Amino acid sequence: MAASSSICRHNLPISPPISSFHSNKLHTLFRFSPQKDFLNDRNALILRCSLRGNRPEYIPNHIPDPKYVRIFDTTLRDGEQSPGATMTTKEKLDIARQLARLGVDIIEAGFPASSEADFEAVKLIALEVGNVDSGEVHVPVICGLARCNKRDIEKAWEAVKGAKNPRIHTFIATSEIHMKYKLKMTPEQVIEKARIMVAHARSLGCNDVEFSPEDAGRSDREFLYQILGEVIRAGATTLNIPDTVGYTLPTEFGQLIANIKANTPGIENVIISTHCQNDLGLSTANTLEGARAGARQVEVTINGIGERAGNASLEEVVMAFKCRGEQILDGLYTGINTQHIIMASKMVEEYSGLRVQPHKAIVGANAFAHESGIHQDGMLKHKNTYEIISPEDIGLLRSNESGIVLGKLSGRHALKAKMLELGYDIDGNKLDDLFTRFKDVAGNKKNITDDDLVALVSDEVFQPQEVWKVGDVQVTCGTLGLSTATVKLIDANGEEHVACSVGTGPVDAAYKAVDLIIKVPVTLLDYSMSAVTEGIDAIATTRVLIRGNDSITSTHASTGQTVNRAFSGTGAALDIVISSVRAYIGALNKMIGFNNRLRTEDPPVKVGIVCG
Amino acid sequence: MAASSSICRHNLPISPPISSFHSNKLHTLFRFSPQKDFLNDRNALILRCSLRGNRPEYIPNHIPDPKYVRIFDTTLRDGEQSPGATMTTKEKLDIARQLARLGVDIIEAGFPASSEADFEAVKLIALEVGNVDSGEVHVPVICGLARCNKRDIEKAWEAVKGAKNPRIHTFIATSEIHMKYKLKMTPEQVIEKARIMVAHARSLGCNDVEFSPEDAGRSDREFLYQILGEVIRAGATTLNIPDTVGYTLPTEFGQLIANIKANTPGIENVIISTHCQNDLGLSTANTLEGARAGARQVEVTINGIGERAGNASLEEVVMAFKCRGEQILDGLYTGINTQHIIMASKMVEEYSGLRVQPHKAIVGANAFAHESGIHQDGMLKHKNTYEIISPEDIGLLRSNESGIVLGKLSGRHALKAKMLELGYDIDGNKLDDLFTRFKDVAGNKKNITDDDLVALVSDEVFQPQEVWKVGDVQVTCGTLGLSTATVKLIDANGEEHVACSVGTGPVDAAYKAVDLIIKVPVTLLDYSMSAVTEGIDAIATTRVLIRGNDSITSTHASTGQTVNRAFSGTGAALDIVISSVRAYIGALNKMIGFNNRLRTEDPPVKVGIVCG
Repeated sequence: MAASSSICRHNLPISPPISSFHSNKLHTLFRFSPQKDFLNDRNALILRCSLRGNRPEYIPNHIPDPKYVRIFDTTLRDGEQSPGATMTTKEKLDIARQLARLGVDIIEAGFPASSEADFEAVKLIALEVGNVDSGEVHVPVICGLARCNKRDIEKAWEAVKGAKNPRIHTFIATSEIHMKYKLKMTPEQVIEKARIMVAHARSLGCNDVEFSPEDAGRSDREFLYQILGEVIRAGATTLNIPDTVGYTLPTEFGQLIANIKANTPGIENVIISTHCQNDLGLSTANTLEGARAGARQVEVTINGIGERAGNASLEEVVMAFKCRGEQILDGLYTGINTQHIIMASKMVEEYSGLRVQPHKAIVGANAFAHESGIHQDGMLKHKNTYEIISPEDIGLLRSNESGIVLGKLSGRHALKAKMLELGYDIDGNKLDDLFTRFKDVAGNKKNITDDDLVALVSDEVFQPQEVWKVGDVQVTCGTLGLSTATVKLIDANGEEHVACSVGTGPVDAAYKAVDLIIKVPVTLLDYSMSAVTEGIDAIATTRVLIRGNDSITSTHASTGQTVNRAFSGTGAALDIVISSVRAYIGALNKMIGFNNRLRTEDPPVKVGIVCG
Repeated sequence: MAASSSICRHNLPISPPISSFHSNKLHTLFRFSPQKDFLNDRNALILRCSLRGNRPEYIPNHIPDPKYVRIFDTTLRDGEQSPGATMTTKEKLDIARQLARLGVDIIEAGFPASSEADFEAVKLIALEVGNVDSGEVHVPVICGLARCNKRDIEKAWEAVKGAKNPRIHTFIATSEIHMKYKLKMTPEQVIEKARIMVAHARSLGCNDVEFSPEDAGRSDREFLYQILGEVIRAGATTLNIPDTVGYTLPTEFGQLIANIKANTPGIENVIISTHCQNDLGLSTANTLEGARAGARQVEVTINGIGERAGNASLEEVVMAFKCRGEQILDGLYTGINTQHIIMASKMVEEYSGLRVQPHKAIVGANAFAHESGIHQDGMLKHKNTYEIISPEDIGLLRSNESGIVLGKLSGRHALKAKMLELGYDIDGNKLDDLFTRFKDVAGNKKNITDDDLVALVSDEVFQPQEVWKVGDVQVTCGTLGLSTATVKLIDANGEEHVACSVGTGPVDAAYKAVDLIIKVPVTLLDYSMSAVTEGIDAIATTRVLIRGNDSITSTHASTGQTVNRAFSGTGAALDIVISSVRAYIGALNKMIGFNNRLRTEDPPVKVGIVCG
């Protein structure tokens, strides 16, 4: 078994991480073990991993290896459309870097015509992550979304053209209901528009153009073949088939892809792609069926985020290919280094503010856990009686495997080494701040766990640019009902501001005191908190979601409507009131700084494999 | 369209609820609209609802209508195996009643041999929910799980025999790896054991026996056909095929069911069932494929809870049948009244402590929401451009549709009427308590929303039996680091106890003060909080999970190991510290009261359709 495990590992395109993120606090984790191929061979134990060799050369409309499936990640575009998931340019850049580490083939970095901030974010990602000198192992294609109009397409091209491999993704609705009620266009007008706009994208110098017939799942088949044939002739290189309302069943979606493959003129010269929404909980299955039917690009998001019930989740789709590709999925495989999955999941959860439920497949806190008390005895009888994926496969490390143990006398060097072991490479001011907070926690808490450290470092590294900083907080509250808070904040010039307020509870009082100082009217949309470790002396992480009253807006890709952006913030502390104030200041900083361009001195978040 | 909508509604077996639960706080919701059958008929708008007529008569091994699929809910058995999801007898009974309202065909109420508490819970559910005089519209089959041994089977029979339609579900592992390492038995011994135990269950007088070959997905096919044929001959009436490790892909699982149907001697005289784990995110798709291939019972849980990544979720499977059964799933349909889904989801979330992520299909907070700002304009162009299920279909009511508006001068009658409108029928002490808390909130908060009321009523109705009660709380905390809390608790005899403590934060200090009074050593495993409404004066709901140091244990069905139970508690208040204390006391009450039998004076939680 040990031998099988290491064969599998050695097939990975790059070496395993120094160490990775640990998010599972209640339960001991289980280890890698091979699986039986119960369909074809009931005696032999065969390997589950199917990553084989190197990624095929990138050619927009052709993949040299017919078994290779491209992973197109749209966390930064479709995922960011989730309510409240607005991300700053820096956050998007951090995620794009992590996606590059993960080995994603194409990053859809945003919708440049949506707002100036989106445009800048896509442009920066194209330059920083989409280039050979980006320092990343793998250089992904950088894609920008555009509606079928000249302005959108030109904006998208301006934003992505700095990448080594730029792509424009344009779309127009093709279902009767969308054409009639949303576009108010005839089918002929829609075809004409699509053809002209794809040709326009090519004429700008972009040799990699993706076209999507929006709501393809509900579009007339003959019309689909016709419009797709036309855009291929106009120069499209990838055709993406979205199940926009998450309405199709797997066999049905597979049939749709198969029909398009069989009936569209010129289809053999382009790549077919899937884009499945999750409204009926079928997006992963639909995506896999699409690939089996001939799609060689799949559009996914980390944690499956997106509007409504979200999209197919990268981790589920990729692990299905990895575990069952060889046996059941015609030998299909992807170029993803799955050991970066957990860190990508954690980062997207932090930046989007969209929590992952404990029973989420692959990345949920319980995904590798059985009810406490069983595993110690029962599971040890044989490791793979209940397990199909090992936590290490996705970069989840057992806490007790970690070599360095920190105590309250540990110094900066030990802390830095420990953080590196946990996958975070931090130094400078960030390390200073972390060290101060570590000392504070070490003086108050019996056991400092990896989770405590990760909560603190997340609070540091996943914070937006600092405009306002939390100084002191003092609170009195209780059933008497006269909660009072005093807050000291420090502004960008280092000046201290103090205010006090009463409120309906300690957080209300503290937030009102903050408002008295910062004076930016906002609405608190959501507030949540969780303890990151066991024990009543645990560190609490707070998340808030706010919307400014003088709204920062963007344009929604599908509907063309103006969207009021909401901003999330997180904070971690032993004291839940302080944690709440840190989160609120984080969200305010994110909102205040949102329209500012990224300052060049802002370092990227360095996580996972440091060297790449 | 209005006509289509009402036709659909009128087909429901019982009338729509008076009103229902509203859990979606950030976003306006959308309305019912029919869908196009884009596969078979591109011009006609056809209905999505496929509930037709009445439920066929219950006969254990035969369904008179070949298109009817039985829903077997295992929230109370497999779902309760999730880490920390322990429920009290009263909570299980409340959920069982809600499952009956939902129209579930079979309720797996527990594993009676697991512990005395489980036995009592199953017995009570059999008597109270599984009987014609239970006051419910529909009387579900009550099922108890048993391993293949005499003691388990006899315990299960003792527990379920009081039901109108009792069922015993027995199982034994059939995969090579499980037989060899877990059971340490030869295949021949396994067959013999299964045969004898199914016959034993029948000999007790149970004419409804379900048999599951555990880890069927990884079992040898020929061996499966053989053992299944043997248990049919011994008297099994339902054969359940579990994909225990969540390893199979939809086509593969469908093929497994088809093969079993084609090759098992006597299979035409029994019902085939599916049980799909969600480790690769494919449980819903696998379940649907199983049904297409011939299964006429599907095992599911509310919110998809269960060990690791959980099970197929009832709401996804049922809504897929409802939306696409007629068109794509060979006309298959279920007997579920989907308008009770949201309340069932909310109740299971409260009692299990397992949160649902915002982008969870069907029941997530975002499932019917688009990014704020779009819906007002864009969505109104045409209601079903982006929507496939209406919120009303699953019992989600728009806040602004609610007729009664409460203010701080509203009286008890208005509150009672409003709660009835929201689906909660409360009176007596519960109403008194709620009214006091409503007045308190009304005096402090500008706008009292439906969500505020639901948070308060949840805190009242979803609480365990009261042993200790929260009196007063007073806290001082801040960056000074000397958090101090004073807590007054009232015991079952009405006696007041006061204690104070310092801690690392206000919650730590308050919990330490509680511990000084209650003196039951526990470990806090998890802690989380969320605001239920917008605004900084929102009500916060806290959830905690604790485990007693002198453990309350049960036996795990699959592994036979002893499991330490954990207990969750929730609390709601304007002040997060008070909310935290209420949650902790709730969990402590649940733990302290767990082994006590349900007191006859405890009223059931009355929710949803009051008359049934």
